[in-house]
Amino acid sequence: MQVEELVVAGGGVIGLSCAWRAAQAGWHVTLCDPAPASGSSWVAGGMLAPVTEAWPGEEALLDLGLEALALWPGFAEELSAAAGQAAGLHAKGTVVAATGSGDRAELDALAAHLATLGRPVERLTGRELRRLEPGLGPDVRGGLSVPGDLSVDNRALLAALRAAAEKAGVVIEERAWAGEGPVLICAGAHSAALHPALSGLVRPVKGEILRLGHRRGAFPLPTRTIRALVDGRPVYLVPRPDGLVVGATQYEQGFDTDPSVGGVRDLLRDAERILPGVAEYALVEVAAGLRPGSPDNMPLIGRLDERTLVATGHSRNGILLAPLTAQLVTGLLAGEPAPAAVDPARFREDR
Amino acid sequence: MQVEELVVAGGGVIGLSCAWRAAQAGWHVTLCDPAPASGSSWVAGGMLAPVTEAWPGEEALLDLGLEALALWPGFAEELSAAAGQAAGLHAKGTVVAATGSGDRAELDALAAHLATLGRPVERLTGRELRRLEPGLGPDVRGGLSVPGDLSVDNRALLAALRAAAEKAGVVIEERAWAGEGPVLICAGAHSAALHPALSGLVRPVKGEILRLGHRRGAFPLPTRTIRALVDGRPVYLVPRPDGLVVGATQYEQGFDTDPSVGGVRDLLRDAERILPGVAEYALVEVAAGLRPGSPDNMPLIGRLDERTLVATGHSRNGILLAPLTAQLVTGLLAGEPAPAAVDPARFREDR
Repeated sequence: MQVEELVVAGGGVIGLSCAWRAAQAGWHVTLCDPAPASGSSWVAGGMLAPVTEAWPGEEALLDLGLEALALWPGFAEELSAAAGQAAGLHAKGTVVAATGSGDRAELDALAAHLATLGRPVERLTGRELRRLEPGLGPDVRGGLSVPGDLSVDNRALLAALRAAAEKAGVVIEERAWAGEGPVLICAGAHSAALHPALSGLVRPVKGEILRLGHRRGAFPLPTRTIRALVDGRPVYLVPRPDGLVVGATQYEQGFDTDPSVGGVRDLLRDAERILPGVAEYALVEVAAGLRPGSPDNMPLIGRLDERTLVATGHSRNGILLAPLTAQLVTGLLAGEPAPAAVDPARFREDR
Repeated sequence: MQVEELVVAGGGVIGLSCAWRAAQAGWHVTLCDPAPASGSSWVAGGMLAPVTEAWPGEEALLDLGLEALALWPGFAEELSAAAGQAAGLHAKGTVVAATGSGDRAELDALAAHLATLGRPVERLTGRELRRLEPGLGPDVRGGLSVPGDLSVDNRALLAALRAAAEKAGVVIEERAWAGEGPVLICAGAHSAALHPALSGLVRPVKGEILRLGHRRGAFPLPTRTIRALVDGRPVYLVPRPDGLVVGATQYEQGFDTDPSVGGVRDLLRDAERILPGVAEYALVEVAAGLRPGSPDNMPLIGRLDERTLVATGHSRNGILLAPLTAQLVTGLLAGEPAPAAVDPARFREDR
């Protein structure tokens, strides 16, 4: 791929970030998407939270997430300046809340796991948590404080990325990629259909998400991202200037973006258990998106053949990993290899 | 009002029905509404259910509702033919389901009340109800069957009314009524602002409503309208060709159309208690509308001054009462008086 022309297939947070950075690096970039910034990036919660997302067995993902998180403040500042509009970074940190004894045991395990990795987190009682976030309800019995896990307003981010990309010369064409010529595939959950080497490596993982609006007289919004376990179910509540984003459901049922009654019921119930004051908030939006799942939850960033690059499979972490992904892709465009941990070649059977 | 020109202010189910009937009677009708068919008529559930809506002390409303219900089959048939599209009548009847003992006691009281009015209804056990509607859950312990209480697809109805009105010569102007000249006020919850005689007589009564979509593999839709009491809270589930409409919340908090988290949570929870299979349905739409409440829950249909007629204040019953209201309004236009029970003059202090 020594030509100066780059076509990016997909206009979500990954495609827009890569297009912007490639244009800054001197490439002539055309981005194709029938509806840019409308897929899972639009639906997302926008957590930048690798530590509170850490699962035993996913240490490589934690390392990647921490590397990405470290890029975020500089990325947001540079993007805001380039776009002439705020990138939406919200640097207030995260608390994790547990309700029942099983939930508290799970947080204990997470804290112990992080300690063994040399990343101790602060344990708090329910009372200490309520001192930080007075809206937390009486069912919250304990938890963690992780000031370094942040969030970003994903819709402000998408608007800023699009503005910055266009100012840098990216041409955005509202059509599907025609399937010919050199390309960078950034089509999220739809990527597998675009290249045979991705077949079986990217699958849609549905998530439902609610957007709540604060209303006059209702309990004030929390300051921090609140993650919680309610009777074993994860839920997150991410503050926005005028409301909250509530999510966490995960289903594997193909390309289905209908929000289900049962999923929305769980999110509302669990959000109220954690922050009872949300009962008075407005339910502004109910939606579902399709995360691009990969076999090991690590992204697929690398070269598929001499005419095809890929940056997809970001699972739950597309927004967090966008600045790092764009940096790796500009490296690929300059002829550098992809790190083995993200290179899709790790799944090749002839290895 | 001996001129042949009639201006109708408001394009909901009442305004459209009156406009259509007036045009059929030879009037030149202009209907003004900034957004026809978009208000509470659009949000509504579409129950035609005066018997299961009967409250002790509202016998006049029951009589009016029964008179209106009797008009519906003929009205729907005539409208479907005039519009060239189905009016959406669903003639499968209604069951009422009770859960706890307090709910069953309330249904007993309703049945006894109806019996004293000479309108006995059939009492059913939980098992008998499930024989009629197999989707009813185990928490349903008993109830009523009222085959005469029907429903209509309110959105099909609005589309048919608009088509029939325009074919009959009604000119629909998408703007607010300018406030001058002879007029028929049909502006629902917004009517009070349009004439001093309506001040204090019409108030907004908010209701939240959900639209659920049936999904492949989910439990089949019920055949009948299902009304229920769940721990004292009323809920209704009205079948549509492809889903269900779920409603029943009532709040008095001004012109607020934000669906609230707490209201939606109650509707989802209560719907699942009654029909557990809806957990697998899609949550397609969440909305709130403003019923035009009147002091006695009876509509306000009559003459306010020599240039002003009114048809509003239909509270929970606008769709049920639309054919009868249009008939009364064409009577007013022909110089007949309004029945005393609906004439807004009943609230005049000088009476």
